[in-house]
Amino acid sequence: MDYKSWLVDLDADAPQFLHAAFRVLNVDAALRFYVDGLGMKLLDRIDMQQLRITALFLGFAVNAVTLELIRYWDETEKYPHGPGYSHVTIGVPDINTTVHRLEMLGMQIVSPPSVSVAGAAPAAFVKDPDGYAIELVQTRNRP
Amino acid sequence: MDYKSWLVDLDADAPQFLHAAFRVLNVDAALRFYVDGLGMKLLDRIDMQQLRITALFLGFAVNAVTLELIRYWDETEKYPHGPGYSHVTIGVPDINTTVHRLEMLGMQIVSPPSVSVAGAAPAAFVKDPDGYAIELVQTRNRP
Repeated sequence: MDYKSWLVDLDADAPQFLHAAFRVLNVDAALRFYVDGLGMKLLDRIDMQQLRITALFLGFAVNAVTLELIRYWDETEKYPHGPGYSHVTIGVPDINTTVHRLEMLGMQIVSPPSVSVAGAAPAAFVKDPDGYAIELVQTRNRP
Repeated sequence: MDYKSWLVDLDADAPQFLHAAFRVLNVDAALRFYVDGLGMKLLDRIDMQQLRITALFLGFAVNAVTLELIRYWDETEKYPHGPGYSHVTIGVPDINTTVHRLEMLGMQIVSPPSVSVAGAAPAAFVKDPDGYAIELVQTRNRP
């Protein structure tokens, strides 16, 4: 099979969420955010010569849900993404460390970590270099 | 803890993809597509009286990645979603059955199931009632 095994289990009986995809203008800037900042791994990079597109698949583990970032080689303007797109949420064990790392990388922190409802996990909003809103939620919350 | 356990493992050391969120205008139409059509479960529905927002969390299993659909109560116009949003990809065991079911529900099939590269899994593009592109990839491909 040509279809990458990390992308889809080719013998799965259960339906599953595979990836969310959006377009980016600057691949290096996006990798700084998602790999250096959030700790995702670049699982694959496919350069499609005929379509003049590069697709990057990023995730935290093989066979887990990925983010697909698509770079159209001939595009020079940032993509307006309209009010329809809301956000992508990523869970991180220690939200303060992650937000601090993103700040050090020069990324935009829209709202710093805070707890909106008593007992809830701390959450923050940041923007990736293309302006997509990314929500961070702390996943390690031992009392 | 107030934060729902299906949404985030509150004792997780590893970062993880939690959900992708976008805004919809008609909740019933969206549920026909994602629940009746794709077989997702409505895992939770949160009506936020003060913000005048309803958030629906849909997924195939508890503790798996979810799609969050957000309905702003006072919004009356469909959301333009711009060229930045590309698509969300869902794996389904039998793509022809799923596409047929979506057709019967009156959903828009953008491109019927086809194999783009020899050996790849069949894929199709459909649109949800708010116009978001959803890619379907067949995950049960036993020879």
